[in-house]
Amino acid sequence: MQYPEPIAKLIDSFMKLPGIGYKTATRLAFFTLDMEKDDVTEFAKALISAQRDLSFCSICGNITEDDPCDICQDPSRDQKAVLVVEDSKDVMSMEQMKEYHGLYHVLHGVLSPMDGKGPEDINIAALLTRLQKNEAIKEVIIATNATPEGEATAMYISRLVKPSGIKVTRLAHGLSVGSDIEYADQMTLYKAVEGRTEM
Amino acid sequence: MQYPEPIAKLIDSFMKLPGIGYKTATRLAFFTLDMEKDDVTEFAKALISAQRDLSFCSICGNITEDDPCDICQDPSRDQKAVLVVEDSKDVMSMEQMKEYHGLYHVLHGVLSPMDGKGPEDINIAALLTRLQKNEAIKEVIIATNATPEGEATAMYISRLVKPSGIKVTRLAHGLSVGSDIEYADQMTLYKAVEGRTEM
Repeated sequence: MQYPEPIAKLIDSFMKLPGIGYKTATRLAFFTLDMEKDDVTEFAKALISAQRDLSFCSICGNITEDDPCDICQDPSRDQKAVLVVEDSKDVMSMEQMKEYHGLYHVLHGVLSPMDGKGPEDINIAALLTRLQKNEAIKEVIIATNATPEGEATAMYISRLVKPSGIKVTRLAHGLSVGSDIEYADQMTLYKAVEGRTEM
Repeated sequence: MQYPEPIAKLIDSFMKLPGIGYKTATRLAFFTLDMEKDDVTEFAKALISAQRDLSFCSICGNITEDDPCDICQDPSRDQKAVLVVEDSKDVMSMEQMKEYHGLYHVLHGVLSPMDGKGPEDINIAALLTRLQKNEAIKEVIIATNATPEGEATAMYISRLVKPSGIKVTRLAHGLSVGSDIEYADQMTLYKAVEGRTEM
């Protein structure tokens, strides 16, 4: 026996999402049946609208409704620094910190030979063109994740950008604020010792 | 800073689902941006269609496209037994077992005084009317969950149905097949000893 088609289809759709298997998809599908009709309509509209109304900023690659995006259009931002991140969610994290006022560049991925992802598969070429065209940029801050792929991507970009004389920096590695040394992994501890600062 | 409105709305919608917080909702929303356009359209349609095209069977209360549902309409099912479950997902579990060929009755909940849920909030009255009207039914099998609320509901229904002379049974409690006695909780062990069967 199968569920009636309308709910079976909804379960299938939920199962296409990451980390959602058959059991969870079923639970979510049945939950939506009991939701307010307006909420479900909103949900359906939001799904369509997100894909239809959003695009990538032609300058920085961040997700946006208007091109160029708000940050690229904002003259009050520090035009001298570009912070390079893996995806749009990282831009949001940086903005929530409220202490960075420069520009961004979103790579939409990292170099990952294991997954067949080379430099032409991520937004690196646009970064180089941008640096060539825009002489105001004096520093590229590489903020890829602290994973092997993130490190490799940082290294790769650094090698391409440095010859042009632009300063290339990388986010600091070390202990998380509020964390115990006892629970830090060895690589993090090593980076914390190596990158120690004078008091 | 906020995400652009289309994605912020989508995140809000995902957050209305059970067990999905801001971080997961964000991950899911960004994932749908990269999905095939057809899949997203399907998803949106399925959301609307599930609520619009499904209703509850007027006989058994199970979720269905047609009223009465396929099971209630099927003359080859054993008309003498009605298995009472908490929700439509339980009907599916029973059907997947493939060994039960009788009818169902879906309560859509359990008695739960803590949540202010009394007999009139679940589908009990319809069960009693059904038993009165349909003299073919000889056995009511109560298959509510083995939780305190499920047990209380089973007891309540049993007391209402028994006076009419219809046999009332309850699913067996005991060890799960393939499980270790070592890991069974004490209540389950007690039920297993109490309900032991002759070999």
